[in-house]
Amino acid sequence: MSQPIDIAVVGATGTVGETLVQILEECQFPVGALHLLASMESAGSSVTYKGRNVRVREVDAFDFSQVKLVFFAAGPAVTRSFVARAQAAGCSIIDLSGALPADQAPAVVPEANAAVLVGLKAPVQVHSPSSAAVALAVTLAPLKHLLDLERVHVTACMAISAQGREAVGELARQTAELLNARPLEPRFFDRQVAFNVLAQVGANDAEGHGVLERRLVNELRELLGLPLLKISVTCVQVPVFFGDSYSVSVHSRKAVDLAAVNAALEAAESVELVDGDDYPTPVGDAVGQDVVYVGRVRSGIDEAEQLNLWLTTDNVRKGAALNAVQVAQLLIKDLA
Amino acid sequence: MSQPIDIAVVGATGTVGETLVQILEECQFPVGALHLLASMESAGSSVTYKGRNVRVREVDAFDFSQVKLVFFAAGPAVTRSFVARAQAAGCSIIDLSGALPADQAPAVVPEANAAVLVGLKAPVQVHSPSSAAVALAVTLAPLKHLLDLERVHVTACMAISAQGREAVGELARQTAELLNARPLEPRFFDRQVAFNVLAQVGANDAEGHGVLERRLVNELRELLGLPLLKISVTCVQVPVFFGDSYSVSVHSRKAVDLAAVNAALEAAESVELVDGDDYPTPVGDAVGQDVVYVGRVRSGIDEAEQLNLWLTTDNVRKGAALNAVQVAQLLIKDLA
Ligand SMILES: NC(=O)c1ccc[n+]([C@@H]2O[C@H](COP(=O)([O-])OP(=O)(O)OC[C@H]3O[C@@H](n4cnc5c(N)ncnc54)[C@H](OP(=O)(O)O)[C@@H]3O)[C@@H](O)[C@H]2O)c1
Ligand SMILES: NC(=O)c1ccc[n+]([C@@H]2O[C@H](COP(=O)([O-])OP(=O)(O)OC[C@H]3O[C@@H](n4cnc5c(N)ncnc54)[C@H](OP(=O)(O)O)[C@@H]3O)[C@@H](O)[C@H]2O)c1
Repeated sequence: MSQPIDIAVVGATGTVGETLVQILEECQFPVGALHLLASMESAGSSVTYKGRNVRVREVDAFDFSQVKLVFFAAGPAVTRSFVARAQAAGCSIIDLSGALPADQAPAVVPEANAAVLVGLKAPVQVHSPSSAAVALAVTLAPLKHLLDLERVHVTACMAISAQGREAVGELARQTAELLNARPLEPRFFDRQVAFNVLAQVGANDAEGHGVLERRLVNELRELLGLPLLKISVTCVQVPVFFGDSYSVSVHSRKAVDLAAVNAALEAAESVELVDGDDYPTPVGDAVGQDVVYVGRVRSGIDEAEQLNLWLTTDNVRKGAALNAVQVAQLLIKDLA
Repeated sequence: MSQPIDIAVVGATGTVGETLVQILEECQFPVGALHLLASMESAGSSVTYKGRNVRVREVDAFDFSQVKLVFFAAGPAVTRSFVARAQAAGCSIIDLSGALPADQAPAVVPEANAAVLVGLKAPVQVHSPSSAAVALAVTLAPLKHLLDLERVHVTACMAISAQGREAVGELARQTAELLNARPLEPRFFDRQVAFNVLAQVGANDAEGHGVLERRLVNELRELLGLPLLKISVTCVQVPVFFGDSYSVSVHSRKAVDLAAVNAALEAAESVELVDGDDYPTPVGDAVGQDVVYVGRVRSGIDEAEQLNLWLTTDNVRKGAALNAVQVAQLLIKDLA
């Protein structure tokens, strides 16, 4: 059993942060002191951990030298504001916001590239990538030796919770307004998201690619160790509270052996294969679970070099909080 | 002005049939007698046409020799049951159910392949393809000469109304049950569809391809006159009442000239290009409109031969009823 480690969670009152605290408890992570941090607004409120209410404090007033490990689970601007203080205090850092440059904080998904952690000495700085990158890396890493990967197409049908607490509230509110024939008043989103699909998640760059789409491309190449992999991504917002879904089409340079693919997925860590005439859904399968569900495994119509898949996973849990905790579990020997 | 034509609509009480009757009125189609047909269940009810209530009658008792043109807008089994009687009576037929073999009833989308109708003599038998094929053909036909089309990837986010009246009612009912914390009782679908995404629409074949997915591949190849085009399709059900959306990724054998693509789409018939930092949505744009909205036009990340698009269109109107009426407009000279 590892030595207990003193930990801070920045953004502990958020969608990801609250789940992260819950997972630390569930997996009996060797937590010493636990410091829950958020903005001034939540300071004074509390979050439950192991049956007791842990008071949330303002990150701005926090002395990072009290802890050895910091999870940054607020937005990227918050990471940017406070990361230097955590670094100066000698903390190891697991960032969930995507704020740190890739060369300073490698993306880690244990099922895909745990090896990058080997030999690192504390303090360590890593990043838990976007939920799309987690889901795709968990699924494609065990297929890498079977396929001669040339190109991956992804359409990501993202859950509302991928945009945080306020977005979740807005879908509920808009839906109720529509069902009760009250006038619709979008606030968090700039338009109706209930019973609709939004073709853009976050900001786009000058070439029309979403910032999130580019991020996924870079993270997935890094996680799979395939810097030249061609990746095409479209991220869209669907009116689902929790659970991202991904329509994935993979091109191999050689014919795909479906039986071998199914066997590899069946054996893969953190993958649950749904086959036969059934398929997984966010609500029915993914939510609250620790794996990536994979279904609709099939080749291309008239294209033996193509593999088509449908993935669904809990974006908040497996896609973020759980992955970060799994990374921490690999790090703790060094950090204790 | 053409001579008025006596018309029958089979499935006139359905999602598509009702819209079809409304469009005949809107576009001042030269209708002579209008016979509205459905099952025994709806016989005796009525549908409004030009301000009067037209009585719905049972198709089984109908004498098809009273009409020159029949729209089959019920399910494929209904087309199969009654098409022989319409043929024997010398009717021209526009089938919307996909029941007729391609070699007996060519798929027609006027914007893409109106030419197949030239020189046909009444009685004519054609088929108005799936709404996905309509949207893709309308968008890709005007780009054909600009791109050396090699492969098309599509993820179709299909509206609930694509499955008809009962499905629409079920999404509303399930949503209300969930918002009111009442137990969920799926009936039309085998699981929760509200706030969820279902990775399968209709039945799958032994290889795991949806019947609808295969149909789209065949129809799109036929409509574009590209029998060898490689097409990869995944159709999923999203909790949207009306308006299909399509994430489309096109591979050309040569670099894509984005300016030329934008100009061609801007000029294309039945296409509305949404550019800049905006994007079209089913609810905000497509519903009730006669065009296919195209947005998020961009090349691949690091792949100049790729073109990515987001389409949304009213599946019931442009995807079915309107396309069928547009086909009829081309046919009427022959039929009068
Ligand atoms: N949601 C997902 O599926 C997902 C998946 C992968 C990665 N991520 C990333 O995880 C991070 C958190 O996302 P979320 O969905 O949990 O967001 P959220 O539900 O909106 O929660 C935001 C959290 O950040 C805190 N915060 C906001 N402003 C702050 C400030 N100035 N100083 C300190 N704390 C501040 C909030 O605290 P208050 O209570 O004080 O406002 C809250 O704890 C984001 O970077 C996001 O991109 C999210
Ligand atoms: N919805 C779309 O977006 C869409 C798009 C393209 C193509 N289509 C195709 O269009 C057709 C109709 O779809 P829909 O969405 O309009 O379905 P729908 O809303 O369920 O309507 C079904 C229609 O078929 C009639 N019908 C059912 N059983 C019948 C029978 N035994 N004899 C005569 N009529 C019968 C119904 O009449 P009653 O009132 O008597 O039950 C009703 O008018 C289907 O083949 C569908 O695949 C639909």
